[in-house]
This record gives sequence, C-alpha cells and structure tokens, in this order.
Amino acid sequence: MSKFEQTDPAVLHALEESLEKGDYSIVLELIRSLHPADQAKVFYELKPEKQEELLQELEIPEIADIFDELDDQQTLTAARNLPLPFLADIIDDMDPDEAADLLGDLSGQEVRKTISLMEEPEEVLPLLRYPDETAGGRMTTDFLVLGPDDTTDSAIQYLRSTGWETDIPYYLFVVNNKKELLGVMGLRELVCADPYKTINEIMNAQVVSVQAMQDQEEAAGVMKHYDLSALPVLNKQGHLVGVISHDDILDVLVDETTEDIYRLASVSDTALEPESKLFLQLKGRLPWLLLNTVTALIGSWVISNFGDLFVKVAVLAFFQSVVAAQGGNAASQNVAMIVRSLALGKLQPKKILPILLRQIAVGAFLGVVIGLIVGVGVSFWQSNPYLGLVLGLALLGNMLVASIVGTLAPLILEFSGQDPALASSVLVTAITDIIGFLIFLSLASLFLPLIQQYV
Amino acid sequence: MSKFEQTDPAVLHALEESLEKGDYSIVLELIRSLHPADQAKVFYELKPEKQEELLQELEIPEIADIFDELDDQQTLTAARNLPLPFLADIIDDMDPDEAADLLGDLSGQEVRKTISLMEEPEEVLPLLRYPDETAGGRMTTDFLVLGPDDTTDSAIQYLRSTGWETDIPYYLFVVNNKKELLGVMGLRELVCADPYKTINEIMNAQVVSVQAMQDQEEAAGVMKHYDLSALPVLNKQGHLVGVISHDDILDVLVDETTEDIYRLASVSDTALEPESKLFLQLKGRLPWLLLNTVTALIGSWVISNFGDLFVKVAVLAFFQSVVAAQGGNAASQNVAMIVRSLALGKLQPKKILPILLRQIAVGAFLGVVIGLIVGVGVSFWQSNPYLGLVLGLALLGNMLVASIVGTLAPLILEFSGQDPALASSVLVTAITDIIGFLIFLSLASLFLPLIQQYV
Repeated sequence: MSKFEQTDPAVLHALEESLEKGDYSIVLELIRSLHPADQAKVFYELKPEKQEELLQELEIPEIADIFDELDDQQTLTAARNLPLPFLADIIDDMDPDEAADLLGDLSGQEVRKTISLMEEPEEVLPLLRYPDETAGGRMTTDFLVLGPDDTTDSAIQYLRSTGWETDIPYYLFVVNNKKELLGVMGLRELVCADPYKTINEIMNAQVVSVQAMQDQEEAAGVMKHYDLSALPVLNKQGHLVGVISHDDILDVLVDETTEDIYRLASVSDTALEPESKLFLQLKGRLPWLLLNTVTALIGSWVISNFGDLFVKVAVLAFFQSVVAAQGGNAASQNVAMIVRSLALGKLQPKKILPILLRQIAVGAFLGVVIGLIVGVGVSFWQSNPYLGLVLGLALLGNMLVASIVGTLAPLILEFSGQDPALASSVLVTAITDIIGFLIFLSLASLFLPLIQQYV
Repeated sequence: MSKFEQTDPAVLHALEESLEKGDYSIVLELIRSLHPADQAKVFYELKPEKQEELLQELEIPEIADIFDELDDQQTLTAARNLPLPFLADIIDDMDPDEAADLLGDLSGQEVRKTISLMEEPEEVLPLLRYPDETAGGRMTTDFLVLGPDDTTDSAIQYLRSTGWETDIPYYLFVVNNKKELLGVMGLRELVCADPYKTINEIMNAQVVSVQAMQDQEEAAGVMKHYDLSALPVLNKQGHLVGVISHDDILDVLVDETTEDIYRLASVSDTALEPESKLFLQLKGRLPWLLLNTVTALIGSWVISNFGDLFVKVAVLAFFQSVVAAQGGNAASQNVAMIVRSLALGKLQPKKILPILLRQIAVGAFLGVVIGLIVGVGVSFWQSNPYLGLVLGLALLGNMLVASIVGTLAPLILEFSGQDPALASSVLVTAITDIIGFLIFLSLASLFLPLIQQYV
C-alpha cells in the first residue's frame, strides 16, 4: 500500500500563512477549491488552534462534509471544543452513519443535549441502537424506497420530485406497508423498463440482506463475495432499517487489516498509532510483552536445568539462540499464511490434514538445508564436528516443531471461535524458543563426551 | 476478517453425489440455483476431474461467469486443459479485465491462437498492453460514452436502445470526437435533468482520472480517498481507454494486505498459500531464513567474544535470550504501527521526529517496567542481586534500541523507495538480538566480580 499522493504542500502552506495573517477570504477560497476529502486532509494537518479558527469561518454544511471525511477519532477531537448548539447543527448535516458514530463517542449527557438541539434527529436515532462493529452501526438510513404497485413512470416522477440526494443513489428498495423488504432495483433497470409496468414486475426479488446485529465483517464478506455496491440491512422483525454502501465496506476491510497486522505483531489495541499518548501505548503493548516475559523466563528455567553443560562446554552458550531464532521465524511464516488463508475464506476444513502434512514436509526440507549449512559451517568454525552435528539435528527438529505449531496454533484458535491472528509472534515463538532450547541442550547432553573431545 | 458463510455443505455434497452418478440434470439444476460467486466457490472445491466433467455440461456464458469469479490462479488451472476453440468462446463472454488477466497467464503461442479464434477480441486487446499491476491492467473497456452536445432526452433514448448491459452501469463518460474525456455524469443526474438540456450543461467537468500506466495501488488510493465508485483511465494521449470499478479496488486492497502481512512475516512470495507446492514454499521462504542464519551466526560470534564468561558464571547463559526476545517483540510492535500508518497515509514527514521521541519514551517506560520485574524476580530466584541488576539494565537498554530500530527501519525503507514492510521480523529482530546480547554480556563483564560473589 502507501504512496498515495499527499495534499499539495503549497496549498497547505498558503493556507497556514493566510490563517496566520487572519486573511480569511483567501483561506476560504483555498479551502473551497478542494474536494471535501482533501479539505479534511488539510484540516487534519492544521494545529488545533488553527482548526478552531477555521471552523468559525466555515458554513455548517462545509464543516459537516469535512467531519464526514475525517476518521472517527479525528472528528471527535475537532468536535470536542464546539458549543453543543453549533455541534447539533453540524451533526444534522452529517451523513447519518458518521453522525451516529460521533454521537456514540460523546458522553451520555452530551448525547442527550445534542439530540434535543438537533432539527432532524430521526435519521440518526435508529443507528444509535446498534454497536459500531455491527452491520447496523455501518449502515445509512438515507436511502429511497418504492411500493410494489407503483408504475415505473410514476416512480421516476416521484424520484425526480424528491431531488434524490441520498447516500445510496443507484439502488431503490421495494417494501410493502409493513416495511418488509420485497426486492431491489437498480436505477438502470427502472430507466430502461416499460413505463407502464409496475415495480413488482421489474424488481429483483432475490435480494441478499444482512441482520442489523450481524458483525460488520460478515456484511463486508457478503458484499465482497457478491460484488454488491449496496446491501440492505434488516432488523429482527424483518423490516428494512438501513443500507450499507460500498465505501463502508472499504473502511471495514481497512480496519480488519489493521487488526490482523497488529495482532500478529502482538499489539493489542487496534486504535494505537505511533503518536498515540504514552499511557495508551503502554496499555496496548505491555500486556503481550509481560506474557513474553513469563515465557522467556520459562525458557531460562529450561536452560537452567542444563546449567553444568555451560561450565563444561561454554561454546554451547554461543549457539543455543540460533536454534530458537530459526524456529521462531519459520513459525511466523506459517502463521502468516494460515491467517491470510482463513481471512480470505480459502481454507476449508477438509484441507487441513493435507496442509499440515505439506507444512511438515516443508519444515523438514528447510530444516535439512539450514541444518546442513549451519552444522557444516560451525563444525569448521569451532573445529568440532559433533557440535555441528548437534546444531544441525536441533535445527531440523525445531523446524519440524515450528511447522506444526505455526500451522496448528491459528487453526485451533479459529475453530475455538477466537481470532487466528492471536497466534502472534509472542505466543508461537515462545513455544518454538522453549522447545528449541530443549532439543539443542538435550542433544548436547547426549553427545557431550564427543563434543568435549574437540574442545 | 474471516468467518464469512461457507458454501452450504449440503449443496456441495448433493452435487458431488450427482456428478458421481452421472446425473447431470440434477447437477445443472443445483448449480443454476446458485449465484455465480457461489457457483465459483462450489466449482473450486470439486476435484479436477469433476471440474472437467462439469465444464462439459455447462453453457459457455455460465462458464464465463464462473471464470470471472474465480481468482486468476484458479481460472488458469481450470482453463489449462480446455481445447483452445472452446476456451476462445469462453473468453469472448468473460469480463474484459478478467479475460485479459487469463490471456496474460497463457503462453505467447496460446494467446495468439486463442485471440485468432475469438469473435470479439477488440474489447480485450487494448488491456493486454498494460501490466497486471497497473491501472490499465485493472480497468474494464466495457462502459458507455456520450457526446457533449447530445440532449439528456436523446441520451436516455440511446441508453435504452443499447440495452445498457455494461460493467459500469451508473456512470456515463462524456468524450469529444478525439476521445478526450470532458466530464462524467451519474445516471441519477441524467434522469433528473431537464430533458432539453445538453450533456455539456449537466455533466461534472471536474473529473478525477488516472493514467493507464500508474500503479494499481495509486488508483485504489484515489478511489478510496474520494469515495469513487468508478475511476476513468487515460492513455498517454489523454484518451479515455477504460474505467476501474469499485469492486476492482477491493481486490487491490486485499492483494496489498496479503503483501504487507507476508512481508512482515518474512515470506517473500505473495502468491504462496499453505497448500502451495513444496518447491514454491522453499523458494518463497528459504531466502529470508538463510538471511536469518547469517544474522543468527553473527549473534553467535558476538557471544563467542565473551566465551570465558560462561565458564566463570554459567548462569549468564540462562538469561541472555530473555533480553534478545523482549527487544525483538517490542521492535515488531513498532514496525507494525509504522507500516500501518504509512499504508493509510497518516504519517506526514513533519511528524517523524515527534513520533521517534514518543517511541523512545515508550521504550524507556516498557524497559523500566519489564526490567524491574525481571531484575527483581531473577535477583530472588538466583539469589544474586547483581545478576538481577545487569538483566534489568540490559532490558532497559535493549528496549530503547528496539524502539529506535523498530521506528526508523520502516521509515528509512519508505523514504528510500522500498516497501516499509520489508523491515520484517528477520531484519529488525536480527539487530535487536545482536545488540541485546552485546549489552547484556558487556554489562555482565563489567559487574563480573560482583555477580561472582553470589554464585
């Protein structure tokens, strides 16, 4: 990823200069020349006090557009210092789903006050019922419905009369008077249809939908699988309550990717950013490192059981980490492949045994190649063929262990209902480290008299 | 991610049974009851010989739909054994961009023969000019254009007459007679406009476009940034040659995510899957493990310079890996955060210094907490306060090193034009391992007389 064009630095510079001078006519001209997505980008890069100044100059609908484009955390920061009546006007103009996310991040008291000050809270209120991570939390309530008995011509007249500014401009949803979803129709089909046919005759009645309380990932999966650009959302009674659009699922995919990458790297707080506050950093990172402390000390305890080995043959202490490090890296490779296969829905249960066998074979080959290179290399370096033999065998053994652990750990997590990405570096390398030490030092004990001959 | 509904196992089972019995009427009935996306899923799960049997029974357009839904590798596998005239008919019916991808995967001779056998190669031929990874390789040529002087009413009549079955159903592109892009129009605007206005008057002339040879990631970035559902693609002469639709950018995002996750886990072949052939597994994984062999042996060499330490105080060998392991995990956390920030375009150059300082502070805090816990714990466990002191100080030092390396390594790669995700576990942990050993054993040498008092 990455490398998407940055906001033109010249615009940002001119903007900051004009803000500094208090020359708001130029500021507004510059800002208004930009697409809202770029306005948001520029806005986000301004210092907090400059952001406040700018908000005082912009029109309410302009601010709403910018807030729609900022991410949730950025919107909250910008909204925090605004007087509630002003904020209520902005939220009235925002996209309902973004407005609901912002309200959801305010305190209970602020939410009640803001809603009481809003002109049209009815678009947002239904969305507050659903948690952020559900289909209901992602949907918009700003879409158009038709009745099954309208003619296509009267439907087009109706749509023209509404002005038709909705979040879901190219799909129309057909509901009966109980608000039950009967079908869906693309604008193209409506326009191309015989003007005297009824909606009922031309709509597509085989419509894919999700439940409002379903996980947003499942909704994203359905949209991706069927290449949908709009997905209707139903409540428990089967009433159509909202629609998810294709740009929402991009956001879901991006969030899920961050979650996978963070979990694989043992960062437990998905919202953590490099510049997050110190306290948040510690909270999001320390738990895994503490777990690693425990597992590393278990490793130390395993090694301590071979304590006298190092007195007899100090050289063993030089190489014990080689075995552990190789196993850890090989296991991480396995975890990455399994986690990705599961995420893309490519891994069916009946494939698990063949995959495990394949990975054991891969581990054996990797172990033989690396075991030979390290074994022969160290034999010559330390002039000690038995040390090389022990290292080579330990590497082979630990590569086999790494293949099995790296393949099974994410699968076991998946089938016990956990996120397979929790089989992160800390967990999997802890096991390969400890077993790596055990194999190497056990073999060294076994071959000790032979190794000592060459020391 | 993950957990999207699997294909109904009952359908798959019934299908396999009917195929076994040769009862093709039931097979076809079952298959035809499914959405093409599900047909593709079922097809992919069949054994190769069953796939071949099924292909002989299906109609050409049905096969084309299934091939459109399979991923590139799966399509190639299924297409490989088909007679070229049959394959040419299928490719004629496929989406132009998928057809071009399939042709691009065939040998030069097969491509020439297949194209000569196709009825309508003109939709696909322009796409073969552009590499898979470019905007041109992702676009479709199946879209509709209007002239600027048409009236909206005549435009709607024209669209109705075409039947309007295109890959880009809700956007219309306005070009002059030199094929230069003048503007874009949503179907909604067309339908709502005054019937006597010209296209020129109602189109949006501020249209975002990309060059055909631009990287597909940049195109995806533009679409995501501006929430576009269709992005026009221009050639060097500024002619409109294709359009990228919103479902293509999902595919790009998914591919880029796989690339990031694989690179972070030191898997160099992004197409690798858990069940890929042994040879491919070795090719995709061995290079990084060999690099790790080299760095691990450098670590061994560093330790070997302190060789006599272990003879004097064997207990040091128990704990040297604790320091290295903690540093490696902390650095991986940093790399994950920086890589993700860069991928999401959130990391501006002016933020780098504050981020580095913040991360050094985080490293110091993590180091103090973990250093205290391990230091005090080991002091009591080994009844050796100076061993605890050395361990604690080494952990603090290595956490600081991990913060700096984990933050700077991906940034340096980014600014030298490389993928920041190449700052993978192997590279970054190699550095933190080696420096970790060095700090711990140097401190141990310094405090050796004091540590020995308690052994």
